[in-house]
Amino acid sequence: MGRMTEIAGIIRNSDSVLIFAHTNMDGDALGSSAALCHVLRNEGKTAYILCEDEISDNLAFLDRGYCTWDLNTVDNPDVCICLDCHGEDRMPKRYSTFLKGKEKLCLDHHATFSCFEGISVIDPHAAATGELVYELIKEAGFEIDTETAEALFAAITTDTGNFQYSNTTKKTFEIVTELFDFDLRPNKVSVEIYENVSPNRIRLESAVMNAARFVSGGRAVIAPVTQEMLRCTGARMEDTDGIAASLRSIRGVEISALLKEKEDGSIKVSMRAKTSANVAAICEKHGGGGHIKAAGCTLSMSMDDAIALIETETDKALEE
Amino acid sequence: MGRMTEIAGIIRNSDSVLIFAHTNMDGDALGSSAALCHVLRNEGKTAYILCEDEISDNLAFLDRGYCTWDLNTVDNPDVCICLDCHGEDRMPKRYSTFLKGKEKLCLDHHATFSCFEGISVIDPHAAATGELVYELIKEAGFEIDTETAEALFAAITTDTGNFQYSNTTKKTFEIVTELFDFDLRPNKVSVEIYENVSPNRIRLESAVMNAARFVSGGRAVIAPVTQEMLRCTGARMEDTDGIAASLRSIRGVEISALLKEKEDGSIKVSMRAKTSANVAAICEKHGGGGHIKAAGCTLSMSMDDAIALIETETDKALEE
Repeated sequence: MGRMTEIAGIIRNSDSVLIFAHTNMDGDALGSSAALCHVLRNEGKTAYILCEDEISDNLAFLDRGYCTWDLNTVDNPDVCICLDCHGEDRMPKRYSTFLKGKEKLCLDHHATFSCFEGISVIDPHAAATGELVYELIKEAGFEIDTETAEALFAAITTDTGNFQYSNTTKKTFEIVTELFDFDLRPNKVSVEIYENVSPNRIRLESAVMNAARFVSGGRAVIAPVTQEMLRCTGARMEDTDGIAASLRSIRGVEISALLKEKEDGSIKVSMRAKTSANVAAICEKHGGGGHIKAAGCTLSMSMDDAIALIETETDKALEE
Repeated sequence: MGRMTEIAGIIRNSDSVLIFAHTNMDGDALGSSAALCHVLRNEGKTAYILCEDEISDNLAFLDRGYCTWDLNTVDNPDVCICLDCHGEDRMPKRYSTFLKGKEKLCLDHHATFSCFEGISVIDPHAAATGELVYELIKEAGFEIDTETAEALFAAITTDTGNFQYSNTTKKTFEIVTELFDFDLRPNKVSVEIYENVSPNRIRLESAVMNAARFVSGGRAVIAPVTQEMLRCTGARMEDTDGIAASLRSIRGVEISALLKEKEDGSIKVSMRAKTSANVAAICEKHGGGGHIKAAGCTLSMSMDDAIALIETETDKALEE
């Protein structure tokens, strides 16, 4: 019996399920969780998504009363399942609650090594955890409806960069094809997620683009986001999501780096590579990590020093 | 016999095919044309795409020697086929050449009425003409390879807004699923199309965003693009493509309007609606037209008057 079958069997036989996703939930984390929570409630089970931080405004439509911030919402849950993450560091305030589950399960597509006590399906070939949740729902024989399809589409479309990233596979398209049988309307989901940009975020992006510096002969671009820039534009640091990718999209740029000044003065670096460069290698040298084309690290130095350091690193990386 | 079968038969039995797409080719026009031209050459036929204007930098990768600007490239072509357009107004300088085809064919998904002498499949339910070209290639029994798959993916992903627009259907996803059998790698195509933004375009977008005015209680946004803004940013008017959609993506905005000052002083208006408004109706009142959610018109008046007029129109449209 495969592990997905085993997980499906455990969930089918449970009465209460508490769902956990990683902090700073993205579309895949919340979409996957909402889809599972919805089908479980339709099956008459007690199900909640236990959160420990805020939901982004553009994802709020996915939470139709599923999310709770109360660690005691479900007493002694039959199942605790973490989606799109595994390990304490992605759910620090909730981890002791997670351990209270009679069964501890996990579906994830992140390859990061982490000790997990319980039954898990960790498939780095899945473009999104939403793909694994779809497989689980089918395996368990739970009914899919429009709301489930929309939440799964939200999960898959966000984690594949709208089916453009290199993680996108034939299976990704096969799954979405099947979701159309449940009256999926992609545009309805996409308007919520993508056409919901705050004016402050627009102002911030303009400011970042104006402050961007081309280095390494135009093959890299480095841009700062200072606390002062946040004050001037009224934006929040979360509004920088996606700006590193926008910087990468500039013609001729192979590596982009967004340097975010945190409130404590340290610099959080988000790096992106377009085709051949490995930004994970750069970030690992400085105590961070990630994927080859998307990685990050935190530097304890001034913004100017951080810019100089990253410039040296991009020079080296692009010489090779 | 269906018309697609008839068209496939005619092309199969021809030796020379001249392909026409609309002026100002987008990803669907050039992707569809490149896919068809490629399979026809693989079949040993003489095939060219006849153009009359420039190819955008980010689409140039699709032209692997297919495009010609010489009206006399093919003498007395067996077939002239127009893709993603029909009618003289979308190929004014080439129309007399088009009429020289022994057979005149057309595949299009634009519903606009136009008299067409020849055999056509015009299917407004197709999300992209690329879907129709895929059908034609299969119907004709031509071989699809990676290059064909990439060109068709380019056509489909651009015309569906990366599978997010409301024209996206189950069939769209089915077709792309099949394209994976030919070693399609979406990211390779997407990097070419989307990660190839000129720095001048970035500067222009920042300038436009800074100049944008929220009207109709924040439910509409109007932004000018003046010749002066082009000079300051080094951008070209073509660089405004997509900016009307970016304006629409602002939270709370239902209608966006980009007002482009042309060299002759007239104002070309590009309007977008998010969910319920009908911008085609507004543009039709002023001699233009388009789709419900994406339309345009040209106004012969000053920028200030044009802004005032569009504000009046959005007020009215959003009151209803």
